[in-house]
Amino acid sequence: MVDPIEVQDILSQVGSLLDSGETAEAIRILQELHPADSSEILYELSPEYQSLVLRQMEDEQAADMLEEMDEEEMAEVVQSLSVGELADILDEMEPDMAADLLGEFSDEQTAALLEEMEESDDVAPLLAYPEDTAGGIMNTPRHMLRRQMSAAQAMSFLREHYADEHDLYYLYVLDRHRRLVGIVSLRALVLALPEQTLDQIMDRDVLTVKPDTDQEEVARLLARYNLLALPVVDEEDHLLGLVSVDDVVDVLEEEATEDIYRLAQVGEDSEIFSPLSRSIRNRLPWLTINMGTAFLSSSVVALFEGTIAQVAILAALMPIVAAQGGNAGNQSMTIVVRSLALGEIELSDAWRVLRHELGIGILQGLFLGLLVGVVAYLWIGNPILGVVIGAAMVGNLTIAALMGVLVPITLSRLGVDPALASSVFVTATTDVVGFALFLGLATYFLAWLV
Amino acid sequence: MVDPIEVQDILSQVGSLLDSGETAEAIRILQELHPADSSEILYELSPEYQSLVLRQMEDEQAADMLEEMDEEEMAEVVQSLSVGELADILDEMEPDMAADLLGEFSDEQTAALLEEMEESDDVAPLLAYPEDTAGGIMNTPRHMLRRQMSAAQAMSFLREHYADEHDLYYLYVLDRHRRLVGIVSLRALVLALPEQTLDQIMDRDVLTVKPDTDQEEVARLLARYNLLALPVVDEEDHLLGLVSVDDVVDVLEEEATEDIYRLAQVGEDSEIFSPLSRSIRNRLPWLTINMGTAFLSSSVVALFEGTIAQVAILAALMPIVAAQGGNAGNQSMTIVVRSLALGEIELSDAWRVLRHELGIGILQGLFLGLLVGVVAYLWIGNPILGVVIGAAMVGNLTIAALMGVLVPITLSRLGVDPALASSVFVTATTDVVGFALFLGLATYFLAWLV
Repeated sequence: MVDPIEVQDILSQVGSLLDSGETAEAIRILQELHPADSSEILYELSPEYQSLVLRQMEDEQAADMLEEMDEEEMAEVVQSLSVGELADILDEMEPDMAADLLGEFSDEQTAALLEEMEESDDVAPLLAYPEDTAGGIMNTPRHMLRRQMSAAQAMSFLREHYADEHDLYYLYVLDRHRRLVGIVSLRALVLALPEQTLDQIMDRDVLTVKPDTDQEEVARLLARYNLLALPVVDEEDHLLGLVSVDDVVDVLEEEATEDIYRLAQVGEDSEIFSPLSRSIRNRLPWLTINMGTAFLSSSVVALFEGTIAQVAILAALMPIVAAQGGNAGNQSMTIVVRSLALGEIELSDAWRVLRHELGIGILQGLFLGLLVGVVAYLWIGNPILGVVIGAAMVGNLTIAALMGVLVPITLSRLGVDPALASSVFVTATTDVVGFALFLGLATYFLAWLV
Repeated sequence: MVDPIEVQDILSQVGSLLDSGETAEAIRILQELHPADSSEILYELSPEYQSLVLRQMEDEQAADMLEEMDEEEMAEVVQSLSVGELADILDEMEPDMAADLLGEFSDEQTAALLEEMEESDDVAPLLAYPEDTAGGIMNTPRHMLRRQMSAAQAMSFLREHYADEHDLYYLYVLDRHRRLVGIVSLRALVLALPEQTLDQIMDRDVLTVKPDTDQEEVARLLARYNLLALPVVDEEDHLLGLVSVDDVVDVLEEEATEDIYRLAQVGEDSEIFSPLSRSIRNRLPWLTINMGTAFLSSSVVALFEGTIAQVAILAALMPIVAAQGGNAGNQSMTIVVRSLALGEIELSDAWRVLRHELGIGILQGLFLGLLVGVVAYLWIGNPILGVVIGAAMVGNLTIAALMGVLVPITLSRLGVDPALASSVFVTATTDVVGFALFLGLATYFLAWLV
């Protein structure tokens, strides 16, 4: 029984073996690990050692390690390999992963690599599909069976021709025009009597997707219906490929990370140790946009310069109203964005969501308005000031709820990912409204405040 | 081939059939759907219709529908069933789901239900484990094979005794003391020669977890090693249960949602249509805490009341410095929190992360400081004011980077989920520091500003 390994320890061990020229021993250690672990170690090695290890290893093992990395990482570790060396490894990779790696190269490099590969027929068709679609994450199914075969025949057929098939979760049953007519799970195959035909045990009600279906939708369908793989077909039901559950787990992680980063206004391809230039490219544009909206709310405050000059304590209190509006708006917005992403609400639920959030916004506004009013009164000693800040709080939290629903739903309706830009609009509004309400009321009641 | 269904349309159809007393027809429609779909419709029906449908349906089909819901939803739809009716349905459910549902009842109700159930032996042991651990999401494996069996024998054994086993991804091979000695994937079984023994084809290097392993860790292990199921064993390697990939997909979704909600300061059991009282319980405490920190930064501003009274435009500019610090700190914090959750960084990487984020913070601070300085100068016409706000911006973005790293890492070291409370500390600091730096510098250079 294996425990999750301590990558750092093994990394330093492998590093010192390579330093002292004991390459064979270093490779032996890597070979004994699961590729998910050895790939992490490979990635941490120096570029020379990466090439050395990939050259000395069996192509199949090198391929297994690369498959555990993302595209950029793969491209990085193979950069010093020759076209011939890399083509040999590509031949051993799963076609979807090989296609992802080829996507990182220039058109000429890709053509040269495909030319050199033996299995390029499985990979080349996949290059046509965008990375984040069903076509981009599918694999080419190699086995295709006919419905007249018996369970026993199917097994011996697979044993003979497809003993190295990784993605073996279901058998795909095609008609003479290579159209998908049904699938048989391995479970059904194992539990079938040897003489039963695939026609008798196959499931005809097959859920399929098109190659241009978004990968997130594919992932949600697999998750929703507890499938191990999902066939990808063209308009005439010809089987093009299949997306399997292990791809989907990665997609769900990736999409959740994307939403989390977008909500925090960070570019979705951020990684903790991205080069400085990429990190800044992923963040600075958002901060600059926010600077614009911040100047907008500044200009609202500037309208009340005269009021503030007379009652300077207003400047100390006004950020409370704006910040609470921002926080409450962010709460509503986040719940709406996540529920849209999970498919828990549709655009047609907008009205129901709005009523619900407005109810929460008004109730929370009343509570926080009362609280801030009382505290401000006790602090500053002026009851009218307490009323002014309390009323502004109620108003701003109501607006916050409104914007927290309307902004993401509107963006979604316009075909923009609501995680991407909602917070800019929500925060800008709650700042402007918060300052304007509070300072506007204060100006109206100025005689009681000075 | 089935398309994802339009739940709303079918819901109204089923609703009107039930209204007009055509229960059998309504049930026929539900039966034809995938349980993932029919369960959604069931959940939307009125309580009387929910009980009616559950009573009229086959127990197995009722069980399939319940299994697609979460615990609270299951408990809600079964509330009017008698102990006997519910026990019959529980008998047909997957043991882990039955245990989750039983967990929603009082101890006396649970005891009564177990008493009435026939399959209580599979379920009762699971009740001991917390819901969010491997023990809480595992199922009891029913088939256990011996290593001397041939592949053909194993298949006919499964066919005979376990034809209704849902979680059939691997065969579990035990020794005479019921300790797990290896597993055989269905793929390996199908591809084996009929006379090969399980001993010859089994994988001995089995990754296992303990029943108290956190569900998130279980999910990450399955995802990392592309497994379809993970055995749960006790200290002596006795097989207790298994966690399968479809549970894990749900866990990953759940944990991502939890992080997203916590980062937005929303309680993690929020749902879009939670009752008002639960929604407010999930949100208002966070807003109240933020009110406290907002008063803290107000009191910092109040220290500079005299300065603001002389140069009221400072009040308009000061939120820009504070807000940009908050945004930048939130970016750093979010990346650190997510990278910790995904296991991309460990606590031991703190120093490296800190240097990286400080570099970004200082560079972004210089850019935004220059920008805000120039714009403020052009707007207000005072170059010293431009220098003051620019310098305050550089300082606050540096502090933001520092806090964006130190706060989540410290919380994590203290055993607190960093997603839970980081943003309170980060925002409070960037507000206080932003106001203090800007107004402090302005006070120092006051002679040039009035």
